Amino acid sequence: MDAVAKAVEAQRSVVDRLFDALREDGRDEPGVSRDPYGAGEQRAHATVRRAAEALGLEIAGDAAANLYMTWPGRDRSAPPVVIGSHLDSVPHGGNFDGAAGVVAGLASVAALQSLGVRPSCDVTVMGIRAEESIWFQVSYIGSRSALGTLPDGALAVRRVDTGRTLAEHMRDCGADPDALAAGARHFDPARLRAYLELHIEQAPSLVEAGIPVGICTGIPGNFRYPTVTIHGEDAHVGLPRRFRHDAAMAGADFAMALDAVWAEHEARGVPMCFTIGRFHTDTARHGMTVVPGTFSFSLDVRAYDPAVLAALDAEVDRIFAEVAQRRGVRFDRGPKPTAAVGPVDPAIAASLMAHAARLGIPAMPLGSPASHDAAAFAACGVPMAMIFVRNENGSHNPHEAMTTDDFLAGTAVMAAWLQETVG
Amino acid sequence: MDAVAKAVEAQRSVVDRLFDALREDGRDEPGVSRDPYGAGEQRAHATVRRAAEALGLEIAGDAAANLYMTWPGRDRSAPPVVIGSHLDSVPHGGNFDGAAGVVAGLASVAALQSLGVRPSCDVTVMGIRAEESIWFQVSYIGSRSALGTLPDGALAVRRVDTGRTLAEHMRDCGADPDALAAGARHFDPARLRAYLELHIEQAPSLVEAGIPVGICTGIPGNFRYPTVTIHGEDAHVGLPRRFRHDAAMAGADFAMALDAVWAEHEARGVPMCFTIGRFHTDTARHGMTVVPGTFSFSLDVRAYDPAVLAALDAEVDRIFAEVAQRRGVRFDRGPKPTAAVGPVDPAIAASLMAHAARLGIPAMPLGSPASHDAAAFAACGVPMAMIFVRNENGSHNPHEAMTTDDFLAGTAVMAAWLQETVG
Repeated sequence: MDAVAKAVEAQRSVVDRLFDALREDGRDEPGVSRDPYGAGEQRAHATVRRAAEALGLEIAGDAAANLYMTWPGRDRSAPPVVIGSHLDSVPHGGNFDGAAGVVAGLASVAALQSLGVRPSCDVTVMGIRAEESIWFQVSYIGSRSALGTLPDGALAVRRVDTGRTLAEHMRDCGADPDALAAGARHFDPARLRAYLELHIEQAPSLVEAGIPVGICTGIPGNFRYPTVTIHGEDAHVGLPRRFRHDAAMAGADFAMALDAVWAEHEARGVPMCFTIGRFHTDTARHGMTVVPGTFSFSLDVRAYDPAVLAALDAEVDRIFAEVAQRRGVRFDRGPKPTAAVGPVDPAIAASLMAHAARLGIPAMPLGSPASHDAAAFAACGVPMAMIFVRNENGSHNPHEAMTTDDFLAGTAVMAAWLQETVG
Repeated sequence: MDAVAKAVEAQRSVVDRLFDALREDGRDEPGVSRDPYGAGEQRAHATVRRAAEALGLEIAGDAAANLYMTWPGRDRSAPPVVIGSHLDSVPHGGNFDGAAGVVAGLASVAALQSLGVRPSCDVTVMGIRAEESIWFQVSYIGSRSALGTLPDGALAVRRVDTGRTLAEHMRDCGADPDALAAGARHFDPARLRAYLELHIEQAPSLVEAGIPVGICTGIPGNFRYPTVTIHGEDAHVGLPRRFRHDAAMAGADFAMALDAVWAEHEARGVPMCFTIGRFHTDTARHGMTVVPGTFSFSLDVRAYDPAVLAALDAEVDRIFAEVAQRRGVRFDRGPKPTAAVGPVDPAIAASLMAHAARLGIPAMPLGSPASHDAAAFAACGVPMAMIFVRNENGSHNPHEAMTTDDFLAGTAVMAAWLQETVG
């Protein structure tokens, strides 16, 4: 067995214990909740920090309370390698979405330490804040804060469960939102050598293929309508069809029209996704015998190719207009945040594939089904790559299932690349 | 001008004042809320009772706290004519849905009194309880209690807003649910001469036709699924389409499939309606970046022809099965209450049409868009008819609009028939 793979394998029990500790930190049956800038995420940060201290890493923070755990390089002034992922989760999510990437970074460092490597440059394992946009409806809060690219207005948005602002939540956790507002950032992206992130796969493509590791080919960009409201007309159940302005049926019509677009892309083999996560009549007013006059929904549309994304944007505009016309309703679209497609560095990706082949670890190229902090680094021009690990049952639910074998396989690929790069 | 029409016209200011008082009783901006077996309905009953006392009518109640206001006939033992409607409303509804029929009954009696009529049999104006099924999800509670046909289990259902049972709400209002449970009823349906109900039209057919009065040709039967739950699988926004079990998309698919059935019936001129009044993701758990694993909705399907209704029932079964298959979800349909088609007595309807023609009041035959207490009487074999009055903006909303002119036109037809029948 290759020395690096063996050194990673030796981390098995440390890794299992760290995942167990993180699960306990976030336990919120069913599943785990590591709420960003809240108690769940705080406990995870403390646990990971202790693990990093046990490896002798330097600990630092920033104005967004991200956690930096640095293995010092021989040349401290050389551009560092960053290995990161987020430590928050969705409510009642699984234990691996996010945290696995931080654990992989620590395990890679520990493995190379055990081989007596002294890195040429700093290797920083980063515990990133607040990646899950379900909470604040803003993408990549921690990583974009670190890079100085947090969008205007983000500090004033409110967490959907608490109603308190991001700035308030940040202060609870020792962050300094005023400094962020004044332009503080932790990284000069031009001075980063590479950003690497390991993540469980959030779709079952690796399970379907029977392959433990995927090497990312790209992270989708998206456009979103977090709060669309349809305004129709309340009416009685007996109203004939031709007189109705049924907001709920307009919602169904919109969803099915977009579903037809997706089916057509799927048939052509063009990857995209849309998700309508919130889709609801007004629960304060709806009833069995009233035709709904208002309806609300959220929309997330994503694709890997900027041209596909732009075409989908136009398709959604068309569907908004057609359904409004067909159903006699009005769409109030609300804000429309967007995130650019995140390109992968082809040289790093090729190197990861080559290391997997050399180690005898089955690996396949894989478009990222989801968005990741890695996209925020790529958007700033940082050479970026990602490693996906096979995972049953998807993510964002309590039933995520990644085996330690698969996790160590992905981590071995990461450690092998790291050894080659900084060893 | 015909003497009866003139006598009805003389009631104009009394009628306007009574509607104004009822609006104040139920005021709950926007619109009025006369919650059944609650404060709003109670105030309306008190107001109507005072109006009846001013006409010298006999006041009585029953085990369901329905209100009976009787103009005694020369033969007290002869089968009475009942003129009724309900005094409850939907939450934030309009002032006329229900109450107009009670006011019309009192105005008809007052008009005939002013002409010196002494009726051959009792004429009972009935203020019916709890017709709006949005509250207890049970149809015709007051009228079916009076007739002894309240379905098993109804007394234990809970009002959707208060969570308290129908029996508890009844006791608050002086009713005797134990007596109802023991089989009490107010009417022997075989001993009723006729049941007549005036109601605002709940669709704009009369507005469209420019005609003030409609004579009912039938009341639709319905089947309902008050609480359908779709069980799919929560998943991440990045999950490809072929792996999803999206409960909300299954809801949209169901709705649009049924909409296609309706469009096809509409094209063939076969009247039906369906309404999905509640249609929603789980508001406690849904979010922009989670594929919804559960979805809930209500369904009301109605038609005038028992054969059409049965065919629709089979169509809905087919759609349930097809969508479950297509989307990989499971439908938990919950209970399925039904109401039979309510046939109109052809002789009374013909007489109403003839009186309208004689009085010079434009009238047209019209299928009832909605369900009404009249259907509960028809289901017991009571000769039943209904008069619809033109109404802008539909019902079950604060913008109901019926002119006093149109109301008095409909009431004149009612009074003319009553004079012919009992004069």
